[in-house]
Amino acid sequence: MASSSSSSSNSPCAACKFLRRKCQPECVFAPYFPPDQPQKFVNVHKVFGASNVTKLLNELHPSQREDAVNSLAYEADMRLRDPVYGCVGVISLLQHQLRQLQMDLSCAKSELSKYQSLGITGHA
Amino acid sequence: MASSSSSSSNSPCAACKFLRRKCQPECVFAPYFPPDQPQKFVNVHKVFGASNVTKLLNELHPSQREDAVNSLAYEADMRLRDPVYGCVGVISLLQHQLRQLQMDLSCAKSELSKYQSLGITGHA
Repeated sequence: MASSSSSSSNSPCAACKFLRRKCQPECVFAPYFPPDQPQKFVNVHKVFGASNVTKLLNELHPSQREDAVNSLAYEADMRLRDPVYGCVGVISLLQHQLRQLQMDLSCAKSELSKYQSLGITGHA
Repeated sequence: MASSSSSSSNSPCAACKFLRRKCQPECVFAPYFPPDQPQKFVNVHKVFGASNVTKLLNELHPSQREDAVNSLAYEADMRLRDPVYGCVGVISLLQHQLRQLQMDLSCAKSELSKYQSLGITGHA
């Protein structure tokens, strides 16, 4: 949910406040970094840098920017929690769980096929 | 596999070559950005910025730096392929597959329990 640019309310967005600059009405950060969520910008700035994020947002359609900011904020948060693996640690864990479930499903199906080969339906 | 610092062979590492600076023997990038993989540094620099990566590597134990660089390179590659969602798109996809597999496994187990309640073993 994008809040309207905070510059009109004299309260700079979290990005402009952190960067100590005037929050202009056309500020690319303001809709996604409201003043009441300062940590979101601090994290994104620490991991990606404000100028990289500005470039990335300017290359996107405005309708895609909120999703982009939220995915950057998630990635930044993960990188600060786990500086070695970040998001990639989450991916590794999910891939491991996926392989485990695939094995469990394969076992269950193999077990089922033994019953089915006996010509009995399980729908008793 | 960390290659030795390329500064000794007069060939700067991919990072120093890109940043047009002298590759010193103690260069923090050299072991992880060999000259024959220029794109790896270009991607990481474009998404995270060289100074952020330098800070992050300097805060880690040398034994953790290679994994950190490889996870940053993967994240950067994903962000360039999918500027809106990056790695988080991969996580969403894996979570979706995981939920699907959990439902499939739950169905298979429920089916199995019907056979088992008939008192028949499937080990025919």
